[in-house]
Amino acid sequence: MDSLKVGIIGASGYTGGELIRLLSNHPKVEILLLTAEKQKGKSLEEVFPGFKGLKLPKLEPLDLPSISQRADLYFLALPHKTSMEVAKALIQNGKRVIDLSADFRLKDVELYQRWYGVHSCPELLKEAVYGLPELYRDKIKDAQLVANPGCYPTSVLLGLLPLAEKRLIEGRIIADSKSGVSGAGRSVREDLMFTEVAESFRAYQVLEHRHLPEMEQELENLLGEKPQLDFVPHLLPINRGILSTIYVNLKVSMTEKDLYELYLERFSKEPFVRVLEPGCFPSTSQVRGSNFCDIGLRVKDKRAVLITAIDNLTKGASGQAVQNMNIMMGWPETTALTSLPLFP
Amino acid sequence: MDSLKVGIIGASGYTGGELIRLLSNHPKVEILLLTAEKQKGKSLEEVFPGFKGLKLPKLEPLDLPSISQRADLYFLALPHKTSMEVAKALIQNGKRVIDLSADFRLKDVELYQRWYGVHSCPELLKEAVYGLPELYRDKIKDAQLVANPGCYPTSVLLGLLPLAEKRLIEGRIIADSKSGVSGAGRSVREDLMFTEVAESFRAYQVLEHRHLPEMEQELENLLGEKPQLDFVPHLLPINRGILSTIYVNLKVSMTEKDLYELYLERFSKEPFVRVLEPGCFPSTSQVRGSNFCDIGLRVKDKRAVLITAIDNLTKGASGQAVQNMNIMMGWPETTALTSLPLFP
Amino acid sequence: MDSLKVGIIGASGYTGGELIRLLSNHPKVEILLLTAEKQKGKSLEEVFPGFKGLKLPKLEPLDLPSISQRADLYFLALPHKTSMEVAKALIQNGKRVIDLSADFRLKDVELYQRWYGVHSCPELLKEAVYGLPELYRDKIKDAQLVANPGCYPTSVLLGLLPLAEKRLIEGRIIADSKSGVSGAGRSVREDLMFTEVAESFRAYQVLEHRHLPEMEQELENLLGEKPQLDFVPHLLPINRGILSTIYVNLKVSMTEKDLYELYLERFSKEPFVRVLEPGCFPSTSQVRGSNFCDIGLRVKDKRAVLITAIDNLTKGASGQAVQNMNIMMGWPETTALTSLPLFP
Amino acid sequence: MDSLKVGIIGASGYTGGELIRLLSNHPKVEILLLTAEKQKGKSLEEVFPGFKGLKLPKLEPLDLPSISQRADLYFLALPHKTSMEVAKALIQNGKRVIDLSADFRLKDVELYQRWYGVHSCPELLKEAVYGLPELYRDKIKDAQLVANPGCYPTSVLLGLLPLAEKRLIEGRIIADSKSGVSGAGRSVREDLMFTEVAESFRAYQVLEHRHLPEMEQELENLLGEKPQLDFVPHLLPINRGILSTIYVNLKVSMTEKDLYELYLERFSKEPFVRVLEPGCFPSTSQVRGSNFCDIGLRVKDKRAVLITAIDNLTKGASGQAVQNMNIMMGWPETTALTSLPLFP
Repeated sequence: MDSLKVGIIGASGYTGGELIRLLSNHPKVEILLLTAEKQKGKSLEEVFPGFKGLKLPKLEPLDLPSISQRADLYFLALPHKTSMEVAKALIQNGKRVIDLSADFRLKDVELYQRWYGVHSCPELLKEAVYGLPELYRDKIKDAQLVANPGCYPTSVLLGLLPLAEKRLIEGRIIADSKSGVSGAGRSVREDLMFTEVAESFRAYQVLEHRHLPEMEQELENLLGEKPQLDFVPHLLPINRGILSTIYVNLKVSMTEKDLYELYLERFSKEPFVRVLEPGCFPSTSQVRGSNFCDIGLRVKDKRAVLITAIDNLTKGASGQAVQNMNIMMGWPETTALTSLPLFP
Repeated sequence: MDSLKVGIIGASGYTGGELIRLLSNHPKVEILLLTAEKQKGKSLEEVFPGFKGLKLPKLEPLDLPSISQRADLYFLALPHKTSMEVAKALIQNGKRVIDLSADFRLKDVELYQRWYGVHSCPELLKEAVYGLPELYRDKIKDAQLVANPGCYPTSVLLGLLPLAEKRLIEGRIIADSKSGVSGAGRSVREDLMFTEVAESFRAYQVLEHRHLPEMEQELENLLGEKPQLDFVPHLLPINRGILSTIYVNLKVSMTEKDLYELYLERFSKEPFVRVLEPGCFPSTSQVRGSNFCDIGLRVKDKRAVLITAIDNLTKGASGQAVQNMNIMMGWPETTALTSLPLFP
Repeated sequence: MDSLKVGIIGASGYTGGELIRLLSNHPKVEILLLTAEKQKGKSLEEVFPGFKGLKLPKLEPLDLPSISQRADLYFLALPHKTSMEVAKALIQNGKRVIDLSADFRLKDVELYQRWYGVHSCPELLKEAVYGLPELYRDKIKDAQLVANPGCYPTSVLLGLLPLAEKRLIEGRIIADSKSGVSGAGRSVREDLMFTEVAESFRAYQVLEHRHLPEMEQELENLLGEKPQLDFVPHLLPINRGILSTIYVNLKVSMTEKDLYELYLERFSKEPFVRVLEPGCFPSTSQVRGSNFCDIGLRVKDKRAVLITAIDNLTKGASGQAVQNMNIMMGWPETTALTSLPLFP
Repeated sequence: MDSLKVGIIGASGYTGGELIRLLSNHPKVEILLLTAEKQKGKSLEEVFPGFKGLKLPKLEPLDLPSISQRADLYFLALPHKTSMEVAKALIQNGKRVIDLSADFRLKDVELYQRWYGVHSCPELLKEAVYGLPELYRDKIKDAQLVANPGCYPTSVLLGLLPLAEKRLIEGRIIADSKSGVSGAGRSVREDLMFTEVAESFRAYQVLEHRHLPEMEQELENLLGEKPQLDFVPHLLPINRGILSTIYVNLKVSMTEKDLYELYLERFSKEPFVRVLEPGCFPSTSQVRGSNFCDIGLRVKDKRAVLITAIDNLTKGASGQAVQNMNIMMGWPETTALTSLPLFP
């Protein structure tokens, strides 16, 4: 069989780089096309010295007429608002698209516009499938447009999934999340300088981060009612990793063992979700560079604490995108995603 | 006037070192005595190369008869359980003692024994004053024995103080705290190795950390009822700093400005508490090496988030101990504590 | 064809973990046996939580009669002095052995004894092949016992190889090397605690590190005379990576382009050595988790500076060991070593 | 006596911040004036949240007519080329100036122009005193314009001083230096982002860094001949600190003890240089936040290795500037510089 021809649109950022890292070991994929606006004309090695020696094309500008013919499936690793236009053109050309931006995650265009601004192709919002395989695997199979989830939502939704599906949650949910710096992308900002971040820790966008509506939308689907969710993200002085500590009230009394078994059962067929035994809690380093989401849990009276760890660039972005591609193509879901975590 | 003669019992750990750093610039103090069991006989420079050149005595063993005569005031930077015996002997000799361990923080001996084990001098628990100056300044003045608060409790209690005093809190309180590694002391443990901690982040002792009863005790005093407090500590890959993100339900509707003014008013005379303007949130780096506690706040409906940052070795331990000494001696409270944060 | 049955002796340390990470994706290898003295009886997941879900045997004690029958090839990731006894027994049983310790790297038993102490099987020193594939590939093919090079020697020797082979070096060579903390293994030592290493940098074993004689031995082979080598290692506050800055005097005038071409030519067939274009210098992050050795170079008058970067656990230890196994088995040398560097 | 009125020109960068940190505890200084171009109009707290509560003026634009009247002594923490114009105007107004840029360090205008570009006031080069107190204390006393040394030159020159003065060095000198990221200032550059620097290490400007001519100039003065100096700087993933490993050939045979005594003797009256006993080598963490330069040494045959550690923002910049001010004013040289290193 011929390889799937793949294009990576926005290849010079960290999620672009992570796509290249993963796809270059994929036996059924050929990367035909890499674009990057600011870095156009450069070799891949100039923006990622570690990729020296890969036989890949140069970074080219994002010229839609030129790029939209050359591949079968496109990964869009672009900023939101930029992504929607590219997706629209590719979809119109009959291509399959996995969009890593926020542009197609929200189903409600008004909600999108409140958090992000004008949406130029709201008609695609309904068509897009939210790319969380643990929830929408069947829809992803046939999707033309997959909206790859945000990194924080992935970490929070996977932590809540079994309880939310069973509607065992009551009242306020608190998601206290901590992310490594690569979550902010490769953007050059003073507050992301080494000297500003190292030996430091802080919260940001307290109760008003843009990933909140995305979590609320999916939780509402699961709970059957609008959730009460408080979300506070924090910036960790590490490169990769998100750890979310999630506090919920249980509707019914459960032992820790009950909760553990509920989670174990729910994720028993999931290749990338690992439920830790009671008493064990995950660290970001135990999933580094892998597509795993590790979950630890604790119950006290009718309060539960769920703690999840993912690599924000892998399960939180590019790894999940490759997982979605595998599902869309009918390939084994773990193809090119079997690398173990890099530790230490 | 003569200098106050001071002894540091347990001088080779990080809180011991921080006491030396602060006290060596104190104009009214003379450090006469340094003890350290494992490192006894060594010069201070051998355990803290950065202190080379200080004219201080060698580290001597903890020989109670010998040490209990030689100073006027003693800082105990010892492990809990070890500390109580030393405190008892010094108190009996009429000395003043500031104990940085957990041994005299809990008023209820049964509570102590549930969390730490047998207490050998429960009669001192009532006499000891909990050394949070923002709460007990008047009692500290005349105390013979001050129980210096834990690092996490300092960060959580200062964050809740104004709301708790006014009894404006309802229902569950969640304190999600993150601490730098020096909070674990200078203990040599595999899980505190550089390679295990760097580029990593994890929770530990989820809902069962020993600082919980200490927070509950003080909150109960403030609230007039037993608090419902969930506390989850996490380990940050930084040397110094605690950031606590605290989630509460408000009994009454308040704007962010209301809350800000409540905090500003409550802490207006406090030299080491800085309330940040609405929209600003603290980072651990902005208090590094200083005795400040910085507080940011956010309100949404009747939910409030309080975020506090301290240096766990300074306001969370040795700086607060020096502050307590200044109060006990009637000196200006900021003496030897005016250094600005070290940034970056 | 059946899989090669492999045993990892000393599986709970960092080089052991790295072997497991690499070998578990090797299509022709089955890991049958894992030993660990202190951690015996534990599951692999208990010592490496990130490996949860791998179907591998428990850690068993190092019982020679039991283990020496069960595999075809053994990786010894043991401390020096412990390793030699195990190697001897396995060799006598006709097994092939790749030893990651220092025990078989030095050909001269007296030299070994000066630096490490008594050697119990000096007869094996001659038989052992020094496992630097770029230098001894042909001998490695048929070796029964491969002495896997030290991490520092790998970084220094690859940097000097082309110049040394051509005998273009004159006078003193200075190798100023900087290593990440995992180079010290998973040993629990105060000076390797997070708080002692983070935000710090220092030299150690200045001019007297045990890797010096190993470098001298191999350089003498290349140069045809005893080298004058000054080697100073330093401890970097990173997990993985060695960067060596090597200063040499050239015997003849060469331009930077001359030197570049010499290196390019020498390493043109080497799958894991990448020579950077003049003006480019490597960082440790561009080889993280990969088996690459990247080399940058600079010439000024008749002075050259060679800068090499490797991952000390991969090309500096376990990756090179897998490379050696591939050579010994006649498999493609890059099998299981094609993962790209993890960045950031 | 009245306070000295001081202006800090370029107060929003890291050396500006460090000046504020140090001077705000100086008993004889009043900071009257802070300028910052990009941040003009902001409060100090907006650019340094840790300085909240300091009673200092707002950041104002660099308007020469306005600023040149208001203080007695000015610290210029500006980029080179910008600094010289400001210095000239202030000098003409009879003010004393300590310039932290490179603009007045080189005596030879042609050398300056080769490395930096056109110099607009070469007549001031002769007048300026190179502000290394250990070498030029007497000249600094009466200087109107002090050129504060570069961070790398401070670390290299102090390491070589005793040997160079005695002319005991022969042949090539190699200075392999490693600096924390704050050495690059608060400039927003992609290669200084957290994600590019953390868990990484690299060399830069190999044999061509701009601090080279400054070192050569001072070494030539000491040696009486042009030195042969190879200088390679590296970027450490830490905030503060420079460690320089310096390799020299000795003209005569010396034991380690001889060398130690030479250094001890030379620096016996220096308040900020600490010579470590043979066998001890400094770390950057043992000088963090202090004005110390710690020196370790090693001799083998006629080769010596000198290792120095400084905090690049303190002894390498602002601390040395304050030391120079103290000398210029006839105050005790250690005023406001007695803080001990912050560890960990």
